[in-house]
Amino acid sequence: MREPNIYGSDTLDAELAPQFAPATSDLPPWGKTTVVGAAVPRIDGHDRVGGTAIYTRDIALPGMLHCAIVHSPHAHAMVKRIDTTAAKAMPGVHAIITCDSPEAKIPWILTNQGAFSQLLDPHCRYEGEEVAAIAAETPLQAADAARMIVVEYDVLPMVVNYEVATKPDAPKLHAVGNQPSPARTSQRGDVEAAFAKADAVVERTFHTSCEMHVPLEVHGSVAQWDSGKLEVWDSTQGVYAVRDSLALALKLPLSSVRVSSHFMGGGFGGKLELGKYTVFAAVLARMTGRAVKCVLTREDTLRSVGNRPANTISIKAAARKDGTLLALDATLLGASGAYPTGATSSYMLLDLYTCANVRAVESSVLINAGQARAFRAPGYPQAAWALEQVMDELAGKLGMDPVEFRLKNIPVVSQLRSGQPYTSTGLADCLRDGAEKFGWAAARKRPANKGHVKRGIGIAAGMWGSPGGPTATVILKLYADGSANVNSGAADIGTGTKTIFAQVVAEELGVPVERVSVENADTGTTQYAPSSGGSQTVLVTTPAVRSAAADVKTPLLALAAEELKIDVDKLTIRDGNIEIAGDTKKVPFSALRSLAQRQQLVGVGRRAPHPVGKVGLPFAAHFAEVEVNTRTGEVRVVRYVAAQDSGRVMNALTFENQVLGGVTMGIGFGLTEQRVLDRQTGKLASGSWHDYKIPTAMDFPVDFQCVPIDLQDKECNSVGAKGLGEPATIPAAAAIANAVCNAIGARIYDAPITPASIVNALASKGGK
Amino acid sequence: MREPNIYGSDTLDAELAPQFAPATSDLPPWGKTTVVGAAVPRIDGHDRVGGTAIYTRDIALPGMLHCAIVHSPHAHAMVKRIDTTAAKAMPGVHAIITCDSPEAKIPWILTNQGAFSQLLDPHCRYEGEEVAAIAAETPLQAADAARMIVVEYDVLPMVVNYEVATKPDAPKLHAVGNQPSPARTSQRGDVEAAFAKADAVVERTFHTSCEMHVPLEVHGSVAQWDSGKLEVWDSTQGVYAVRDSLALALKLPLSSVRVSSHFMGGGFGGKLELGKYTVFAAVLARMTGRAVKCVLTREDTLRSVGNRPANTISIKAAARKDGTLLALDATLLGASGAYPTGATSSYMLLDLYTCANVRAVESSVLINAGQARAFRAPGYPQAAWALEQVMDELAGKLGMDPVEFRLKNIPVVSQLRSGQPYTSTGLADCLRDGAEKFGWAAARKRPANKGHVKRGIGIAAGMWGSPGGPTATVILKLYADGSANVNSGAADIGTGTKTIFAQVVAEELGVPVERVSVENADTGTTQYAPSSGGSQTVLVTTPAVRSAAADVKTPLLALAAEELKIDVDKLTIRDGNIEIAGDTKKVPFSALRSLAQRQQLVGVGRRAPHPVGKVGLPFAAHFAEVEVNTRTGEVRVVRYVAAQDSGRVMNALTFENQVLGGVTMGIGFGLTEQRVLDRQTGKLASGSWHDYKIPTAMDFPVDFQCVPIDLQDKECNSVGAKGLGEPATIPAAAAIANAVCNAIGARIYDAPITPASIVNALASKGGK
Repeated sequence: MREPNIYGSDTLDAELAPQFAPATSDLPPWGKTTVVGAAVPRIDGHDRVGGTAIYTRDIALPGMLHCAIVHSPHAHAMVKRIDTTAAKAMPGVHAIITCDSPEAKIPWILTNQGAFSQLLDPHCRYEGEEVAAIAAETPLQAADAARMIVVEYDVLPMVVNYEVATKPDAPKLHAVGNQPSPARTSQRGDVEAAFAKADAVVERTFHTSCEMHVPLEVHGSVAQWDSGKLEVWDSTQGVYAVRDSLALALKLPLSSVRVSSHFMGGGFGGKLELGKYTVFAAVLARMTGRAVKCVLTREDTLRSVGNRPANTISIKAAARKDGTLLALDATLLGASGAYPTGATSSYMLLDLYTCANVRAVESSVLINAGQARAFRAPGYPQAAWALEQVMDELAGKLGMDPVEFRLKNIPVVSQLRSGQPYTSTGLADCLRDGAEKFGWAAARKRPANKGHVKRGIGIAAGMWGSPGGPTATVILKLYADGSANVNSGAADIGTGTKTIFAQVVAEELGVPVERVSVENADTGTTQYAPSSGGSQTVLVTTPAVRSAAADVKTPLLALAAEELKIDVDKLTIRDGNIEIAGDTKKVPFSALRSLAQRQQLVGVGRRAPHPVGKVGLPFAAHFAEVEVNTRTGEVRVVRYVAAQDSGRVMNALTFENQVLGGVTMGIGFGLTEQRVLDRQTGKLASGSWHDYKIPTAMDFPVDFQCVPIDLQDKECNSVGAKGLGEPATIPAAAAIANAVCNAIGARIYDAPITPASIVNALASKGGK
Repeated sequence: MREPNIYGSDTLDAELAPQFAPATSDLPPWGKTTVVGAAVPRIDGHDRVGGTAIYTRDIALPGMLHCAIVHSPHAHAMVKRIDTTAAKAMPGVHAIITCDSPEAKIPWILTNQGAFSQLLDPHCRYEGEEVAAIAAETPLQAADAARMIVVEYDVLPMVVNYEVATKPDAPKLHAVGNQPSPARTSQRGDVEAAFAKADAVVERTFHTSCEMHVPLEVHGSVAQWDSGKLEVWDSTQGVYAVRDSLALALKLPLSSVRVSSHFMGGGFGGKLELGKYTVFAAVLARMTGRAVKCVLTREDTLRSVGNRPANTISIKAAARKDGTLLALDATLLGASGAYPTGATSSYMLLDLYTCANVRAVESSVLINAGQARAFRAPGYPQAAWALEQVMDELAGKLGMDPVEFRLKNIPVVSQLRSGQPYTSTGLADCLRDGAEKFGWAAARKRPANKGHVKRGIGIAAGMWGSPGGPTATVILKLYADGSANVNSGAADIGTGTKTIFAQVVAEELGVPVERVSVENADTGTTQYAPSSGGSQTVLVTTPAVRSAAADVKTPLLALAAEELKIDVDKLTIRDGNIEIAGDTKKVPFSALRSLAQRQQLVGVGRRAPHPVGKVGLPFAAHFAEVEVNTRTGEVRVVRYVAAQDSGRVMNALTFENQVLGGVTMGIGFGLTEQRVLDRQTGKLASGSWHDYKIPTAMDFPVDFQCVPIDLQDKECNSVGAKGLGEPATIPAAAAIANAVCNAIGARIYDAPITPASIVNALASKGGK
């Protein structure tokens, strides 16, 4: 088990390592494409909506047992005694593990300072931490028996307010203290000197709330052992990551652990790592010799499997009269939860705009609450919330249009990556095209409306700092009838990955999309691909898909040349046919007898190396119009334009879907979502969808437009695409906050903007 | 659907086609091996005997329906009317197809003369032919409803005696007559002239009975549709062959059909082709939108899914005084069953011994009985039964020892393959080593015993004429911890294929066998391999496994050289370590950081081409000692030596297992197994294991010895192995027949040798 690093610094390291790449990686960039980019419906859409797709919860194995988990009801406590006598006697019960079992000692949350916990730890550091697990014949028998386990606790002092947790006299979660890692400072230039030269300075402190992933499909696993080999069905974004951690936890060779996730219903970063539920299933299955299913309840997922940590971000920013951004000085504090992890990100603060003098001081702190985890652009929406509001305030002080002010400071190189030029910088295009589609200039000039419902417009920009992780391998099989199968370990977490893979094969080989099948996300049968997270799936794995498709061309042409008795140089492949120079005859692949004899041709593709000396990153600019009811404090987002530079659009439908989902998540982050922990007990007060409100279709703007900036990036990789998942959500909440400020003439610094905070802001404004 | 050709002439063609092979195919032959050849227990042995292995019958899908089939009770009849009204009203029934349904028209048994039948044919040509299929909620509901289908037949004249079926006035099964293909003549030299010069001539006619495959696991499939894609679990020897036929039958792209067979319980050639039960499951699943399971009853498998056809073989053979075989002249007639297929093989007759003048005339004939299918060395045991008894009679006439006579005529080249030399000819070694181990010379001198239980010894030789089919591709993944996964489409039909694949990886890369996992026999996830039949799995696919393992060595060494900063020429791989020339330090794969960064290395292996101008074929010589009770006619095989030249022994345990199984099957063929069709009705009289007697452990000789002739063939392929499955059974029955003759002094020409035929032979001998 490795330390979960929600900011992916491992990824950045790996990217710099030398890479093996076959000749076919150096494919020339595509020009205009016909299948790639088209609005191709998902190849598994029918399975997903028709109910035939098999998710982890649907797995039913002969003799399968069901697992229930016993949780600590206290935010901080030590288990004194566990009595399983009554539970063991309950009907259907097959096995129980507790803090007292040998299996409890499996180390958990490993860092270079050692393990911070174990599978079942008598020291419970948040409400919901696991103290026992049961396997029984039915889910209800397991749940009933779980209630019969008697646990006595010593309740300890607790802290759930992360600012309080930094104080010296705060209750401590671990012997090393609540802030085991020192604050980290990143800087360039001379910030103090720059402030001295400034024409305008803004200094503000922002708070963001803890947000939950709430994927439609809850977390869960099914485990089964065969002859010392472990097979796991898991709802995960990364079958390889889960396999590796599981093998390490259970001391098994990697080849003895098979993890698959053929269909999964959303992760958003919350399903990148091994879960305790998976280990419970595996351990209980080994003890009982039966398959074991362990699926969390919705309440469990809200308590125990991750969140976007609350941040406090203070920014002091300075600019010159002409709009040049002079300096940014920021401190960031994030709430890790009960175990150490970084809980802030300064990347976007330091690199979204050209700025010679920047400093960011980041620290994280432990609290008696569920653990922070990667969550769609970890740290970025928080940073955008603060930075983009400060940018608006600076523009206001300078008397500049917020769009113009941002355009004044567009980066042309990556300041954080040794000044390497970007393969393409669509930020300016996002701002200009988005503003035009939104009608920004006209809307700015519109007079304020008179009624109690105020309209306002806002803009925010964003970027995502990862160009993708390590190499991926893809196998392509071209069958004798000209149909094909693509094999990759990448999970399709709902974004349409499988469909895009099929389109890439169709584009490169001319095989129709409906004749391409996809086998994915199974460590037993598929090739390695990095986890589907960090907006990297398309840019890391589709170049390998293209490379694999190209790799069957050589033997295919050689076979055709031999069979047709025509010089190989005269043959080309187009639309599933062999074409002959100077001849109108087309020979379909399926007509090649030599292909039929071989049954199939196999192509191997690997990701091409990153471009040398350049970096490809995605950008976005979002424009929001809101209506604020000044009597009730309600905010409605009524109009929205999301301009995205993610390089080539791979699929017009899934592109828009991703952006739509990202904006929805931003609306929740900005307006409604908030984990509430009871101050007296540390217990979760928002443990259901009644109490934790995520936006629905009713909260989404009717007037929504996605504006892809299709720059045809020819350098970032052989398909020309950059990431989309994260940049689609990063600026959304900040754009809404700026629009709210524009509507009511008062700025709200803390997310989410609730009816109460609107009323408070209006009251403060009145009192100013 | 292609014409099932049980004699694999497709295979012989494909073998001559040009083949793609990467550089790694030209691996130097292994010298002495340590893991390959060892008695490694099966890696899936625990699954198989522990009950955790999932066979097709164990598949249980949510909402799965069950299929029952309605069969013709007549050997020859025309359906007049089918009434499904009552059946449709039965509880649990979801769908019914009959001869009247559109699906009935799916063509079946295609030849270049067109389709000879359809999925549900109103013209029923044998008892058990399918006329309707039902899908219902439970197996019993399906069976009950099947009984409620009312079918009215016009009963037609029938013929089940294949010699009668050749007569002009016999009832005709098809408009083209009972012998649609003309007799085929193969010959070399001048047979008539040779007979004129002979010192000894023998002329005999032999009959063999129809034998059934009776695999432990009955035939069956489960089918499920998702978005127009079909997934099938099948008990098959060849997932690719089934996929191809199914795609053709249902007009689907190959990429839309997935067929898997992770565990299967025996096939013996009877599970090489698409079965009607598979199409029933697929069609009913499409109609109902539910998964459908169709598993045959034992009675169905005995009637409908294949057999070793009865043969009548007449041989006239001549030799010179010095033991030189001068001429062989043979006619062969085989019983195809209700649809055309070749039902004889002259290969062994024409090529086992050096003989300048040979002729074989082969023909097949249709009868109103279940269809012949490939069966462990199709045609060879029948040919051995005749040839090897004639060889003994010739030796007797010449006054020569039967072993000496055979040794006199050992082939050094393949006369049927343009005189190409064999890569190795172990026939002489089989005869010599086998005779020595058996104590042949001493046993020959032993005086006949006095009592009513007579002892006798016999010998027979054999060969198998196929060097294996088209190319196979294998993918090998080496993981970061030095464990590995091998991916191949080959089914492990109980012979230990998976174990041998793991051994080959272990041998080539030094990864321990228990750290190699195997993914196989799934067209959705694995690479193409020919069907597991014709003794070709080891020799076609393991060279590709070795090649794939070798293919990861190059990048592995390059990574190691870069990481260790040592010239790549100084590095070698041994036992899972990188070794450095002139340094005792060993670096395990798992210590390579650069391997961990890449997560895995992928190697692609393909079968090397056959050796140019040479041919590698396996040989065998079996020695049997029997006790014949002259009062009861009972025969017991009491001692047995099987000497096998199959090149390198890949696994000492599975090698002996295969030979043991082959000899068991030969005992059945020679002594007990016989399909009995009622002469009056054409109905199967031996439709259960009570009436169709296969040998058990009680019938197997206690004193059994397997003698591998481990010639380390360095030319046949890169692993040095030739086939074993077929040659292990070919000579067995003939050796027993020769031993019976030696015991009682009378020869029995028809198989099986029953107590009645012993008594008759003794009576005839007395009367002579």
